[in-house]
Amino acid sequence: MHFKKPQIVFSDKLPDLKLFKGGKGGSAALLIHDRILLNRVPNFGDWAKKFPASYAVEAGEELKDLASYSKHLEKILTLANQFSPRELSIVVAGGGSVGDFGGFTASILKRGVNLIQIPTTWLAAIDSAHGGKTALNVAGVKNQIGTYYPASQVFLVRAALFAQTSAQAQDAAGELAKIALIEGGSKWLKLATASEQEGRLLWRFLPDAIAAKYRIVQKDPFEKKNIRQFLNLGHTLGHILEAYHGFSHGSAVAQGLLFSVEWSRKKKLLKASSHIKILNLLNQTFQFTPLTEIKGFSKIPKKDFMELLLSDKKRHSTSEISFVFLKDYGKPLLKNTPALEILAEARAQGWVET
Amino acid sequence: MHFKKPQIVFSDKLPDLKLFKGGKGGSAALLIHDRILLNRVPNFGDWAKKFPASYAVEAGEELKDLASYSKHLEKILTLANQFSPRELSIVVAGGGSVGDFGGFTASILKRGVNLIQIPTTWLAAIDSAHGGKTALNVAGVKNQIGTYYPASQVFLVRAALFAQTSAQAQDAAGELAKIALIEGGSKWLKLATASEQEGRLLWRFLPDAIAAKYRIVQKDPFEKKNIRQFLNLGHTLGHILEAYHGFSHGSAVAQGLLFSVEWSRKKKLLKASSHIKILNLLNQTFQFTPLTEIKGFSKIPKKDFMELLLSDKKRHSTSEISFVFLKDYGKPLLKNTPALEILAEARAQGWVET
Repeated sequence: MHFKKPQIVFSDKLPDLKLFKGGKGGSAALLIHDRILLNRVPNFGDWAKKFPASYAVEAGEELKDLASYSKHLEKILTLANQFSPRELSIVVAGGGSVGDFGGFTASILKRGVNLIQIPTTWLAAIDSAHGGKTALNVAGVKNQIGTYYPASQVFLVRAALFAQTSAQAQDAAGELAKIALIEGGSKWLKLATASEQEGRLLWRFLPDAIAAKYRIVQKDPFEKKNIRQFLNLGHTLGHILEAYHGFSHGSAVAQGLLFSVEWSRKKKLLKASSHIKILNLLNQTFQFTPLTEIKGFSKIPKKDFMELLLSDKKRHSTSEISFVFLKDYGKPLLKNTPALEILAEARAQGWVET
Repeated sequence: MHFKKPQIVFSDKLPDLKLFKGGKGGSAALLIHDRILLNRVPNFGDWAKKFPASYAVEAGEELKDLASYSKHLEKILTLANQFSPRELSIVVAGGGSVGDFGGFTASILKRGVNLIQIPTTWLAAIDSAHGGKTALNVAGVKNQIGTYYPASQVFLVRAALFAQTSAQAQDAAGELAKIALIEGGSKWLKLATASEQEGRLLWRFLPDAIAAKYRIVQKDPFEKKNIRQFLNLGHTLGHILEAYHGFSHGSAVAQGLLFSVEWSRKKKLLKASSHIKILNLLNQTFQFTPLTEIKGFSKIPKKDFMELLLSDKKRHSTSEISFVFLKDYGKPLLKNTPALEILAEARAQGWVET
């Protein structure tokens, strides 16, 4: 199988339906969107009305629950059946959970229909809308099922992204920092001198961040070659904070990055000068607060930590995890690491009860 | 994307687990099987016990219902989570419904794990276990969702196939006849002189039938080029008999073939000499009974017929269906055909109430 990079379109406004690829452009397009966009994004309601069919959902992990998926799909099928499967496009407007839900649906509906993504959160615009991974949750465990199904087009819409709060923009910094650490190069260090507001900063770095992600994805789209897994930097530990403490994805990944950098230095994978450069980026530019300095943070009980760690999809065997270290700025390194070793380090760094 | 043809293995007995490809062969294999095989196939229980994990299901369309899928998947995940996703193989032993269910599950579990099919009905051995199509049903409508996900290996096991009743073997004749009509050539005509019992006949023709199917699938694995759809010969009308009258799949397809041949002749697509040759094959060799001569058959009400016809996945547009005709023995022809024209012909051939 090969991976076809989507057409990436940057635009100021919600796109004209004529721009959609597929059998009949917008005239056979089914919009699946986060209901909140009707209130948040100017003119979203008028734009949604141009679609011959649309389906509004509540964003969040519950949307991705397989147990309730059947009811959604029955309704979506009723809407979809007015079109020929060959002509149908599913257009997904929303953040990560809506993108996963809509992308998975497009990938299995009639064994796959044309998919167009319009990420409306910074996190989705930088990361999750790209690379073709879709997923649902099973019995409360995240992303247990899913597909590789790249969109044919991804629209980055300034008006939608700038309608987010500044906290949401801040949250995207976790994924932006991840891409910077994986890709390296001087351009990310310029972030340090950027005095713009967060949204404008993200919008300016968005084309670079997206291009960097596709460079990695295209080398290993189906995660067979231990390359795409570099994108998991900060995620193994981050997911645990997300699940146990309800951290937002971006802030959890930020903590995961700090953890991985610290551990890489301890293991002497990372030399001192690179360590300082990276810490500057994470602490000064991105202003990530160390986990143990976050108000109200309580250490995770060992049992919960291990359970979450071992449910990770990146598990290499019964007791080992593919963990992403850094051997330099721009040089990630994948190592199969015993879960118990990760536990010991998590205790050392104050994540887990001793 | 491209399609990788599975390794096809013919064997007398249930295969040694060491023959399984994948990370760790049989030692990370999860068996999903039709429960009935424990009673039907000699030594099946002992063989199943060799797997580190197994999950028994009741075959049938209910197994494929998306509404109950979540419960199955929770249990399957509990079993699967003892293995690394990269090493896990899902081995599916059963007929069409179990193959669809297990194949779909393998295709989405952790975004896809190694799949091995062991079809245990003649219908699955000839047709459904090959070509990578998987599917579930939504709200009672067949195959509304699914994936293209070829197995890495397909085992054809004589002991399992011969454990079926002669009626089940007879039922497979529908798909065998379909392949004969699509592929053409003299070898299928030799079926006419075969005096063997049904099972032995099917076993002898199985390698040819499977090879013929892959020749077509490999030209158009994802149904983008109007070639793979040839395999739909007899199915558009057949599915309606299956859904409305509860015909078995094979006998429904047999009727669909008779319908298509008759219509192709009426439309003068098929010349008289070919028509006679084909009718000989269908009526003499395969001994298909014409629909209107089947005891207890009642014509289908127009409303039900149209509803089922328009829910067909092969629908080309709102009102047209891609219908497979024959322009000669071995020469299928795809034509976008108005649903109302199909209705008129179904009335003329005594399928639908006038």
